Amino acid sequence: MATGNPNLATLHPVSGVKISTVSAGIKTPGRNDLVVFELAERSSVAGVFTKNRFCAAPVTLSKQHLSEASVRYLVVNTGNANAGTGEQGMKDAKATCERLAEIMEVEANQVLPFSTGVIGENLPMDRLLNALPLVKSALVEDGWVEAASGIMTTDTRPKGASVQFEYQGETITITGLSKGAGMIKPNMATMLGFIATDAVIAPDVLQGLLTETATKSFNRITVDSDTSTNDSCILVATGQVEAAVINSEQDPLFAVFKAHLQALMIDLAQAIIRDGEGATKFVSVQVENAVSQDEALEIAYTVAHSPLVKTALFACDPNWGRILAAVGRANIAPFDLNKLAIYLDDVCIVEHGGRALSYSEADGQDVMNREDITIRIDMASGEASETVWTSDLSHDYVTINAEYRT
Amino acid sequence: MATGNPNLATLHPVSGVKISTVSAGIKTPGRNDLVVFELAERSSVAGVFTKNRFCAAPVTLSKQHLSEASVRYLVVNTGNANAGTGEQGMKDAKATCERLAEIMEVEANQVLPFSTGVIGENLPMDRLLNALPLVKSALVEDGWVEAASGIMTTDTRPKGASVQFEYQGETITITGLSKGAGMIKPNMATMLGFIATDAVIAPDVLQGLLTETATKSFNRITVDSDTSTNDSCILVATGQVEAAVINSEQDPLFAVFKAHLQALMIDLAQAIIRDGEGATKFVSVQVENAVSQDEALEIAYTVAHSPLVKTALFACDPNWGRILAAVGRANIAPFDLNKLAIYLDDVCIVEHGGRALSYSEADGQDVMNREDITIRIDMASGEASETVWTSDLSHDYVTINAEYRT
Repeated sequence: MATGNPNLATLHPVSGVKISTVSAGIKTPGRNDLVVFELAERSSVAGVFTKNRFCAAPVTLSKQHLSEASVRYLVVNTGNANAGTGEQGMKDAKATCERLAEIMEVEANQVLPFSTGVIGENLPMDRLLNALPLVKSALVEDGWVEAASGIMTTDTRPKGASVQFEYQGETITITGLSKGAGMIKPNMATMLGFIATDAVIAPDVLQGLLTETATKSFNRITVDSDTSTNDSCILVATGQVEAAVINSEQDPLFAVFKAHLQALMIDLAQAIIRDGEGATKFVSVQVENAVSQDEALEIAYTVAHSPLVKTALFACDPNWGRILAAVGRANIAPFDLNKLAIYLDDVCIVEHGGRALSYSEADGQDVMNREDITIRIDMASGEASETVWTSDLSHDYVTINAEYRT
Repeated sequence: MATGNPNLATLHPVSGVKISTVSAGIKTPGRNDLVVFELAERSSVAGVFTKNRFCAAPVTLSKQHLSEASVRYLVVNTGNANAGTGEQGMKDAKATCERLAEIMEVEANQVLPFSTGVIGENLPMDRLLNALPLVKSALVEDGWVEAASGIMTTDTRPKGASVQFEYQGETITITGLSKGAGMIKPNMATMLGFIATDAVIAPDVLQGLLTETATKSFNRITVDSDTSTNDSCILVATGQVEAAVINSEQDPLFAVFKAHLQALMIDLAQAIIRDGEGATKFVSVQVENAVSQDEALEIAYTVAHSPLVKTALFACDPNWGRILAAVGRANIAPFDLNKLAIYLDDVCIVEHGGRALSYSEADGQDVMNREDITIRIDMASGEASETVWTSDLSHDYVTINAEYRT
């Protein structure tokens, strides 16, 4: 299941990026499961990666290559995460980069590898290496839609977003893809995200932009609280629109570009929640007027991870007591229960430490029947606000994750 | 569903305790849903209560009465938690104590009230007050079995444990009840627990015994990470066996008594996990050789709460990568991945940062097919160990919690 509009947006090509999507048959014969991005020379590349201590071999190698060389290729396979695979996993990730570099006549450390799928199994290197020679002739500028499908695992739909805007007479494009539906509580990035622009952006500025916008997008979603071993998000600036230059945060284009990028990143992150495993609801948990950002996030995630809140959402049950109980067990400093107020969309459900006087079950039911629901928690104790996006906990979530490996 | 032996143990009466179980029809007409314990004069009474900030009105009032007076009665209703009910909830809890005190000819603050059931609805006081006069004539010494059923909510079976032991020629009895199946991650106590002994124990020693043994029993279980608003656990020493005296931790009987009490408390706590909502597995998560108790608990709970680990357990799928990913995202200081080892029962699944060389899928499958499974995580970095008990995440969990209020 999934929520919202299933249709993929128009994805504008980004000058300086070519994409090839081919079949290596890693998990399923014939499936288009191998995606390669070719980046123009002198592109700036920034990355954010999982904080899971058991990060996968490709994550370790991508971080190393990104720090060493000028990146020209991203190679992504689905069907196998190459995580928890020890030394063999690192050998396989390196061999993948070396073979693609050989074909494309670049150095191996100019290739960043990414893998997603089952944890703990070795990559089928014979099939992967056999497919790499197919990549070169399949590179096209208009390959974003095929790539969005090519990186899917338990996703039920491809995810992409694209924006074009005029700035001082120049048209700037930003286009991105994301994937992910389960094992989703990103910590620096989503499962996988690839975003490119044709603007000219200095590497350190690009890294700052990615870190900041990922924090307020991919790092604010959770399906099931399980941070993946493979989360990676890459932002590329190909520099093909030579007049659109961002060398520092003081450049006038910076704020405009950042706002567009942030909107696109949120769109890609929310798409993961809308396609969350078994999702029937898209839920925004907004915490307002908390003492600190940390406190606001702790409350928001405690509510967003509560199995009892999530099953009530699945049941369209306005069981507001479960929301109150989750707020009450959040690991925060003491606060004034009587000042706190909780709303379902515009319906106040809790005030003065108990059920709101104005609340009626019919009003609560009316909100819970909606597909998109906002749980708003006003702490009335400070000025910090945070929003986290999540899905409900349904039978399909259990089915998908009880059957995924079989 | 539930795991383990469904039969209730023999529950020995405790001299100085009489119990009455009657019907108030709070949620279901005719259901025996009101339980009253009568304690002998001069009994010592200790309590531990939820740390959920939205603790229910009866929890607040019980804590107050316990600090004020010599307790003679515990009154427990199921079907309604009287939580999130604001001022009216406190009025209702007080009225319940006052009416029972009037009938029994004691002071109102000699009565401790307990409620369990749906959060956020007012108690049906007319039905509750009408039933209280039935209590007095129904008091019996041999009422533990009926009481165990009387306090159930979504529990599928009554839970009790009892031990008798000889000490210096005297027979000492400890008998206890617990209830709970969902909204279970106790923080000081389980949903509800009532334990009594006929020994003579000084109040401060009794409180210390309860706090310490609850920490290693009810505070080490989790079904769904949701700490209840109503968790309460009461330990009573009626002092009827006058030769069995514990006035301090130096009394020879102290260590013997404490060990028996700890065993009984663990038994009652594990019974909650065996009856966890939708449970098909009883899972012990043991963390060994961690740097600190806090670190060991953080790792154990991260694994025990992971929806992906829990659905893999439900599916009997030896998907050890999900366990490794959960350990990797635990919020602890950096550690040496290569030293860590993870076992399913006696099968080593992870060592040297990846799948153990000796591991075979058949061995893993053999363990996962069992009903009782131990996940053992050896951090090889310190001397602290902790064990947490949990259940799996099944379709029945979702069904129970999506349908509970309807």
